[in-house]
Amino acid sequence: MNKNNPGNYFEDFRLGQVIRHATPRTIGDGDRALYAALYGARFAVQSADSFAKAIGYPSAPIDDLLVFHMVFGKTVPDISLNAIANLGYAECRFLKPVFAGDTLSANSEIIGLKENSNGKTGTVYVRTRGQNQNGETVLSYVRWVMVRKRDEVSKAPPAVVPELRTSLAASELGEALPPLDMAHWDDALSGSTMRLSDYAVGEKIDHGDGMTVEEAEHMLATRLYQNTARVHFNQFAEAQGRFGRRLIYGGHVISLARALGFNGLGNAFHIAAINGGRHVAPLFAGGTVFAWSEIREAAPLPERAGLGALRVMTRATRDLPCHDYPTNEATPDKPGVILELDYWVVLPR
Amino acid sequence: MNKNNPGNYFEDFRLGQVIRHATPRTIGDGDRALYAALYGARFAVQSADSFAKAIGYPSAPIDDLLVFHMVFGKTVPDISLNAIANLGYAECRFLKPVFAGDTLSANSEIIGLKENSNGKTGTVYVRTRGQNQNGETVLSYVRWVMVRKRDEVSKAPPAVVPELRTSLAASELGEALPPLDMAHWDDALSGSTMRLSDYAVGEKIDHGDGMTVEEAEHMLATRLYQNTARVHFNQFAEAQGRFGRRLIYGGHVISLARALGFNGLGNAFHIAAINGGRHVAPLFAGGTVFAWSEIREAAPLPERAGLGALRVMTRATRDLPCHDYPTNEATPDKPGVILELDYWVVLPR
Amino acid sequence: MNKNNPGNYFEDFRLGQVIRHATPRTIGDGDRALYAALYGARFAVQSADSFAKAIGYPSAPIDDLLVFHMVFGKTVPDISLNAIANLGYAECRFLKPVFAGDTLSANSEIIGLKENSNGKTGTVYVRTRGQNQNGETVLSYVRWVMVRKRDEVSKAPPAVVPELRTSLAASELGEALPPLDMAHWDDALSGSTMRLSDYAVGEKIDHGDGMTVEEAEHMLATRLYQNTARVHFNQFAEAQGRFGRRLIYGGHVISLARALGFNGLGNAFHIAAINGGRHVAPLFAGGTVFAWSEIREAAPLPERAGLGALRVMTRATRDLPCHDYPTNEATPDKPGVILELDYWVVLPR
Repeated sequence: MNKNNPGNYFEDFRLGQVIRHATPRTIGDGDRALYAALYGARFAVQSADSFAKAIGYPSAPIDDLLVFHMVFGKTVPDISLNAIANLGYAECRFLKPVFAGDTLSANSEIIGLKENSNGKTGTVYVRTRGQNQNGETVLSYVRWVMVRKRDEVSKAPPAVVPELRTSLAASELGEALPPLDMAHWDDALSGSTMRLSDYAVGEKIDHGDGMTVEEAEHMLATRLYQNTARVHFNQFAEAQGRFGRRLIYGGHVISLARALGFNGLGNAFHIAAINGGRHVAPLFAGGTVFAWSEIREAAPLPERAGLGALRVMTRATRDLPCHDYPTNEATPDKPGVILELDYWVVLPR
Repeated sequence: MNKNNPGNYFEDFRLGQVIRHATPRTIGDGDRALYAALYGARFAVQSADSFAKAIGYPSAPIDDLLVFHMVFGKTVPDISLNAIANLGYAECRFLKPVFAGDTLSANSEIIGLKENSNGKTGTVYVRTRGQNQNGETVLSYVRWVMVRKRDEVSKAPPAVVPELRTSLAASELGEALPPLDMAHWDDALSGSTMRLSDYAVGEKIDHGDGMTVEEAEHMLATRLYQNTARVHFNQFAEAQGRFGRRLIYGGHVISLARALGFNGLGNAFHIAAINGGRHVAPLFAGGTVFAWSEIREAAPLPERAGLGALRVMTRATRDLPCHDYPTNEATPDKPGVILELDYWVVLPR
Repeated sequence: MNKNNPGNYFEDFRLGQVIRHATPRTIGDGDRALYAALYGARFAVQSADSFAKAIGYPSAPIDDLLVFHMVFGKTVPDISLNAIANLGYAECRFLKPVFAGDTLSANSEIIGLKENSNGKTGTVYVRTRGQNQNGETVLSYVRWVMVRKRDEVSKAPPAVVPELRTSLAASELGEALPPLDMAHWDDALSGSTMRLSDYAVGEKIDHGDGMTVEEAEHMLATRLYQNTARVHFNQFAEAQGRFGRRLIYGGHVISLARALGFNGLGNAFHIAAINGGRHVAPLFAGGTVFAWSEIREAAPLPERAGLGALRVMTRATRDLPCHDYPTNEATPDKPGVILELDYWVVLPR
């Protein structure tokens, strides 16, 4: 009997199977502070109880991406310990606000399985739900990963690939927002005067700043999320691996891009949904991350007075300032883009 | 319309103007723990609720310098994003204790403006106030910075340089102290038996220990304070800059010197005021910080039974142990001093 | 009068002397988060209030080793500032659970003194007790350290070496456990199905993963514990020392080994006692830590329904994966082992 968790291989997953993940995690004020120290986010709603209360929150909610990383981390030992690549995300929705003191747990349903033609790997599609201590779903998302087979000759199940939407509609957003009175939004304190109507579809925003990442930082972050993917931590093994170095958790890049995005999207206080995301290239310690965004859609939130939503494509780059918006599509001849994230943010109208 | 905050240039400031800064910040237990991990401070009042309560605090107050850094950080996007140098501090007073759960915000009044003779830069003097969620001022200080002009040919306003005091008087100190019963001060727990009368004016104290700083540490600290000064974070840009490296936030050195100062000033539990400070030379990652102090004044706190104050000049050095008190004034031929801080601390009589 | 604490030398200790240590420390949610970020522990009881409450705790208790490090740190300025080596631990018992908000203080009784034959050093044996704000002892342990003499010609006291037990008995364990209802233990959430009866005496478990340590990480940890041992922080001095580098606090390795041990001992939620420990070789930044364990004893906890205990010998290695269980005894010709820790863990029957 193997007491050391070997992780699941492609053959171990069954369509419709629901995996309850270890380890539940109470999120507290310490996680909030560490998240601040790791990324330097400055969105006022998450930063200050007083600001959050003024518009209707009971207290400052936990940063949406911190919730995402905590839930994601729990899935790693069961879903992606033997993964070769994290292929994509879809239909990610934030459904309830999370506050300090809440305890998050997670489960994943296997919604698709497809062996690759080489017979060595397969793609596993999971819908993961993060829940609070009351059993309420606070987050739901689909991801798909390429997972090794334990045995190349094992028979593959019939291929099932779920139909996934490329984008959520504005009408589906806002479930994680309590009733808010946006008349009390204070632009001086939020750091931006920009409202929904100030953004135009097609507009591009250089977020300007660059942030260099150190080994200690991404490892602190990834351990904070109890994410056990081995490639992030073990230099002894990675020295002999594909890159010769520890690979930085892709979610670390997402949070860096979001924090950099304050400069240009400072009033976009809530991530309501992630339509899709792709880790185009890896990031290693010593690299400096920049980001720029393109506005893809803009809409009021139906039946939510004072609130609107922007669909944004944010691209993060490595060692490449974004004042030229270097590329729309990362291609081998236009290196530098490491992340493409298509998501919906909520801001005052 | 530029959505990416370009910061203010010299021409953008007006005498008498009051700028309300983003982002308010609730200080919590996580910030306290991170501050401990970053500097290793051991002052008992800030470390232990039980010790603080024994002498009359409702709970352990937040470290004075953590409050300073949080307030300072908020001013950066509006005051010093286009600064070339942080020239000095004066009249810094801690006016109310801050506790976990309090939310800090900040505003700055422009109290002086003086163009430099080269026509390219000017000095901006601001009085910054940090306030808690009840609108009470917890901290007030003046700083002056050299800021770039946007346009060299723009006309300068009449020069106004505020008169600033070189030192506060002992009679002005202690506003941030609640009523305290010093009979319950426990020297074994505080780690020092030294009282006001044990210090002599002119006495010099080598704080002995040295602390090496890593890139990850100063960046975690500076992001925790939501300080966005670009020179601290972006190695890609700094590699082409004046020093070729990221510059460490001067406040990080102040906190290191304060923590090192426990060894010799262990009972000096509260910083009541900062008379002045100067970042004599930069610090870079890999440098080891040492510190020594000179006692400049010693006085009982009027009408505060059991309490006294020391005016201290602490000098921090880089890669230079302080057992020889290498220099009183940093000069080009006596390198190593990186900080001079003239401040008042409170301790038991 | 020396205001800078020089630490105690061998001659300064008296048999029977009790030293009350500075600085008391309130442990909070921030410490918990930092501990998670530093080691990535995933034991459900310490991670989640909901899990802890389900089995009978009032809330998630603080990790046992975080309590140990906090208490240990306080002893350094008085006991081991002039130590050459930390020789061993014995009779370490966790006696009360610690929760966020508790304040820890510590005292040490000198229980043995023995000058070494070279006349330059002596061994000091201390029994250290950590207490909470109610004066209850939460932790008790013996350690012995080799300490420098101030003066080689000073006369040594009569040699007294305490008799120390090599292991505690299972019947002595469990004092730090509140009444627990193990029927509510959820293996899916805890991450392991392994119960007491699944482990066999003599069994060896490779914990599999490796964790590389950075300078920033071990310094953050050691400062968090207010441990002031100079060798961990001062690269300027250590560059000229025995190793040329900063030495990592041995307790950091213990916590890494414990966190790695989740993979194989995931239900072993509580360290009830440490029978003995030895830092076989030093660890430096850049090294990757692995660990493996051997089960030495297994027993139900008397009068504690549903609970059992395993006596475990965990060995941590440096840059040496443990799938071969490289050595039982570290010897010069079998390098790589850096820690041997003999301890009792509690898990569900």
